[in-house]
Amino acid sequence: MRLRKVKGAVERINSSSYIIEEPEKYKGKFKELFNNKNDIRIEIGMGKGNFIINQAINNPDINFIGIEKFDSVLVRAVEKIEELQLSNLKLIRMDALKIDEVFSKEIDIVYLNFSDPWPKNRHALRRLTSPVFLEKYDNIFKKERRIIQKTDNRKLFEYSIISLSEYGYKIKYINLDLHSDEKDIITTEYEDKFISKGNIIYKLECEK
Amino acid sequence: MRLRKVKGAVERINSSSYIIEEPEKYKGKFKELFNNKNDIRIEIGMGKGNFIINQAINNPDINFIGIEKFDSVLVRAVEKIEELQLSNLKLIRMDALKIDEVFSKEIDIVYLNFSDPWPKNRHALRRLTSPVFLEKYDNIFKKERRIIQKTDNRKLFEYSIISLSEYGYKIKYINLDLHSDEKDIITTEYEDKFISKGNIIYKLECEK
Repeated sequence: MRLRKVKGAVERINSSSYIIEEPEKYKGKFKELFNNKNDIRIEIGMGKGNFIINQAINNPDINFIGIEKFDSVLVRAVEKIEELQLSNLKLIRMDALKIDEVFSKEIDIVYLNFSDPWPKNRHALRRLTSPVFLEKYDNIFKKERRIIQKTDNRKLFEYSIISLSEYGYKIKYINLDLHSDEKDIITTEYEDKFISKGNIIYKLECEK
Repeated sequence: MRLRKVKGAVERINSSSYIIEEPEKYKGKFKELFNNKNDIRIEIGMGKGNFIINQAINNPDINFIGIEKFDSVLVRAVEKIEELQLSNLKLIRMDALKIDEVFSKEIDIVYLNFSDPWPKNRHALRRLTSPVFLEKYDNIFKKERRIIQKTDNRKLFEYSIISLSEYGYKIKYINLDLHSDEKDIITTEYEDKFISKGNIIYKLECEK
């Protein structure tokens, strides 16, 4: 992801009530934060937040948490959410590697949208579907483990299918050209860009 | 598959020593037929035989059996093999549904190349990766179950990934645009035709 520095981003993020400061404090009890018992779904690497914001709007009975480490995109999500005043969406600024320090047996779905493909083999374990991360996710899921992935990166998608399968996930849904089949898809910013370039978008849903 | 009647096909097939007549007789003892202890790999729906013939040429220490129900394509394979005098390749004329009446715990790999996609949902169980067939394959594999599939039919491939995964197969290799990555691929007749049309070829290898 190429990032531009956004002036004042850190200040704007820090002052937003939608950002969860010290998320470790809520480990195992994020329901309390939302003040209800609804399911919690997270998106790791939510970028500017289009996808998770629209999910939150369309599913008021589900709680969403967006995770992003880069201030310059996170600030855009913050701006949008402030405007919409959504009560079922929160954001966390952190590196995905810390995911299991923050959540414990409370997540229903992990969304991975257009994650960094880390194309070099020696960086394979940095991919969000590598065993390093799958092991972390094991600890954050409430019961059924459910991962939903979208990407336009063929190599990342191939890697993910093998890695998830090897780790014991069963593939419940797969689409190798999402936008040729389905309508009314909640897209990410990247997705919109890639579609307009004519890229194929891949999607899978898996469970363990 | 559109088929033309080939005059004299049945006679030519019946007179070939490469066709196994009454294959049920060899159930559980196909090694005797080849007179060696080499692995046995089968291709279900081998068509005119390009793929399996080239596999047999390139792998003299492995035995191959091609299975095809349509005389009009089978006869083309017979003609080619007669010319090449291959000792590690035999053919069986039969419907794939009978596969477990003919083999028992002796197959190492099942190849499924460009199988009939049976696009209608109500025909899904006729697909060669449906649970109906996966159950039959269970009985024919020697030890590890290994299926290698190629197709240009996206819907069949998506269905196969889900069906295989659901049945307990782990996907060990997958390529969502085979010919953009790999060279020296042993192709089928269909594959050559589809590549020249610019179709994407999908491939997977799975194990259970």
